Amino acid sequence: MLLPAQIIQKKRDGNALTEEEIRFFINGFTSGELPEYQMSALAMAICFQGMNFDETMWLTRAMIESGKVVEWKHGALGQRTLPTASFYADKHSTGGIGDKTSLIIAPLVAACGVKVPMISGRGLGPTGGTLDKLESIDGFNVNLSLDVFQGITEAVGCCMIGQTAQIAPADKKLYALRDVTATVSCLPLIVASIMCKKLAENVDGLVLDVKWGSGAFMRTREASADLAKAMVEVGKRYGKKVCALQTDMNQPLGQQIGNALEVRECIEIMQGVATGNADSQSRPTTAPSDLLEVTLALSAEMLLMAGLAKNVADATQMLQKKLASGDALRKFAEMIEAQGGDARVCEDVKRLPIAQHVRPITAPKSGFVQSIECDQIGYAVIALGGGRKVAADKIDFAVGFEHPKKIGDAVNAGEPLMVMHYNDEARAAEAEGTVQHAYRIEGKPVATRLPLIVQKIG
Amino acid sequence: MLLPAQIIQKKRDGNALTEEEIRFFINGFTSGELPEYQMSALAMAICFQGMNFDETMWLTRAMIESGKVVEWKHGALGQRTLPTASFYADKHSTGGIGDKTSLIIAPLVAACGVKVPMISGRGLGPTGGTLDKLESIDGFNVNLSLDVFQGITEAVGCCMIGQTAQIAPADKKLYALRDVTATVSCLPLIVASIMCKKLAENVDGLVLDVKWGSGAFMRTREASADLAKAMVEVGKRYGKKVCALQTDMNQPLGQQIGNALEVRECIEIMQGVATGNADSQSRPTTAPSDLLEVTLALSAEMLLMAGLAKNVADATQMLQKKLASGDALRKFAEMIEAQGGDARVCEDVKRLPIAQHVRPITAPKSGFVQSIECDQIGYAVIALGGGRKVAADKIDFAVGFEHPKKIGDAVNAGEPLMVMHYNDEARAAEAEGTVQHAYRIEGKPVATRLPLIVQKIG
Repeated sequence: MLLPAQIIQKKRDGNALTEEEIRFFINGFTSGELPEYQMSALAMAICFQGMNFDETMWLTRAMIESGKVVEWKHGALGQRTLPTASFYADKHSTGGIGDKTSLIIAPLVAACGVKVPMISGRGLGPTGGTLDKLESIDGFNVNLSLDVFQGITEAVGCCMIGQTAQIAPADKKLYALRDVTATVSCLPLIVASIMCKKLAENVDGLVLDVKWGSGAFMRTREASADLAKAMVEVGKRYGKKVCALQTDMNQPLGQQIGNALEVRECIEIMQGVATGNADSQSRPTTAPSDLLEVTLALSAEMLLMAGLAKNVADATQMLQKKLASGDALRKFAEMIEAQGGDARVCEDVKRLPIAQHVRPITAPKSGFVQSIECDQIGYAVIALGGGRKVAADKIDFAVGFEHPKKIGDAVNAGEPLMVMHYNDEARAAEAEGTVQHAYRIEGKPVATRLPLIVQKIG
Repeated sequence: MLLPAQIIQKKRDGNALTEEEIRFFINGFTSGELPEYQMSALAMAICFQGMNFDETMWLTRAMIESGKVVEWKHGALGQRTLPTASFYADKHSTGGIGDKTSLIIAPLVAACGVKVPMISGRGLGPTGGTLDKLESIDGFNVNLSLDVFQGITEAVGCCMIGQTAQIAPADKKLYALRDVTATVSCLPLIVASIMCKKLAENVDGLVLDVKWGSGAFMRTREASADLAKAMVEVGKRYGKKVCALQTDMNQPLGQQIGNALEVRECIEIMQGVATGNADSQSRPTTAPSDLLEVTLALSAEMLLMAGLAKNVADATQMLQKKLASGDALRKFAEMIEAQGGDARVCEDVKRLPIAQHVRPITAPKSGFVQSIECDQIGYAVIALGGGRKVAADKIDFAVGFEHPKKIGDAVNAGEPLMVMHYNDEARAAEAEGTVQHAYRIEGKPVATRLPLIVQKIG
């Protein structure tokens, strides 16, 4: 057995660690016997030297086994023989700006008969968090015990909570450390952190939304594809049905950015009121919105895994019916009710927090939107108070932006780039500057559009 | 001002830090406001991304200014105008096996009229430490206050102590952290760690013994030369006279390895009893030993800096006279006396700790010594109890080895590779195996000898 410093040195020098060494480190760190300064040094060495697939698997396993693995009512998939047995599936996104698909996917897929237990996260860096969005619904409780979480999932069909102390405590502790030691953007650590929670959730199927671009952790298509492949491979080794869609995050997804605004957009899509499109002249209003397109594609994969549809076209048709019939919205209301929230928001979105002031942010020049520093839009939400600068910050749910101009859109100087909802003038001024700087506008039209869904992996 | 995590990320991504950022990190770490896990993550990032010269300077300065800078009686060099003003000089070695030159250099150079205040270290990894060697002299106190250290240096001419809490406390804390996070062997961190202590010592001249090879931290000539150049440059920027000799550490230096044994070897050289050569047939007994050669070369540079000799030949002649006259040994005795030690060892080396058992370690085969894994000889001393496995270990001063066969020496199977002094049979058995494995013996003679002193830098 090597000493901790020797294990760090082994990785620093580019050698692969053994399962025993990884387990020793993770167990010691979780129990507090191994000091944080050794864990952070190892994490930094991993950022530079990487981990091979076996090491990544062992790291994931050590983190899963630091806590509890959920046992579902019907037992593991392999032991279920009845055709009526439930299929448990989850969707995970690597995070983005305006990325709110979970809020539609959970009730929509549950309305189709799949059980959807979701353990979600808070806002992280510039990206928003599903839990923060849900908490903009008055009374909504994301801090449930595993037992209650399981009970609601079985009874309602879906439930959305935060990470509990019982699930992968090693990850919770390591993530907090990585956040303050610049070791977040490191492929094997990301893979293990995401997959340990999903594998501890013990779902049968997992669909990953792996984003790339200026609003994503992975800035390049290549890095994002590598991450997707590694996560799919880890999931498969654990006998799970798993696939990933690689999607674009070079501009905000959908028409709303900010916690309550994003909940409103989801409800309106499930009400059939909104298509998710701005009434902009730059795109035909009959086309599905980018938000709806990604939502349906991810949901369809979940139905395919559950064996509820033969192909993507059938699955999409089934999903659209559940949206049109109001079944998805009713499921969402049922879940809100079960989790202590004010389900009346589903009929009346004005019950969501509303900002005191609304004003457009105007384009400083005329031309076409060439590109957007999408993470800056996320930081602008934080500037408004809609996200956290430090962990203790309280969130202003009402603030944010709507109807952002997207890449390729034409805009005249003085016309709105987006509409800002705010409660504080000084914060608004800061956010306005940030948004204006985030847009690159040039005279020439944009020749090629980036594909919204790049590829399916796995 | 950046957050600590952003500073770490900046370095992780290969960017240079500003003086303000480095100072913020070092000050926060020293005061305890900045957690150790951020310091260790930054240290690891520096191991991979390095530091440019300015960053190294700023790091050194921040570490110097974390503590006190010694003020000598005669003031800084620039303010001294009297021709009789003292010159303060020190020698620092990057460490090796059997590397005991400090024990001769301090009294020898002091006997020539230079003030030699030395702040030395403990054994580190496989290498021995000057403080441990000195403590094998009964009563010798290396833990003196700065005031007493200055007083003895002025009165006697030389004094040798350990790092005090007043000198560069940032380095003391950072070194302890690096030791347990595999961030020791990193050029800018080594440069800053060595130079901050020497610059806080505030000597006028500094001679560096920068070793390379299997018994040194720097395994290659290139890495060792880079280290020497960086340290010389930092010292010069501080207005110091500084040079480095790059010397060989692919085999033990001298004829004795182990604390009391090394003190004995130094005393015998100063007595004129020993030349430092084994009575081996493989080398002429009239030639100066490797130990004496390195000692004289380093000492000569100190005399040249002090303006006491015109050239190396003159300086060497002066030094040899001081050895032959017994002046160096008398100065050593005076220093031992001043530091509370039993100065009678200078006349009677049998007063040093003596091991209960002595036996040869034999060569497993006949041939010529091609190479030695010199660090393993250091680990063999530790196995005997002559060094520490963990910081709390108590040292057995008596144990060690003498008369090691050196590279190029002929040896017959069953003849001694070296002679082991030991107190515990089980420990001796382990050490014996380690030594035998460290020697590579082949039938062919060794064509080229490695130069003992590779080059002078600065």
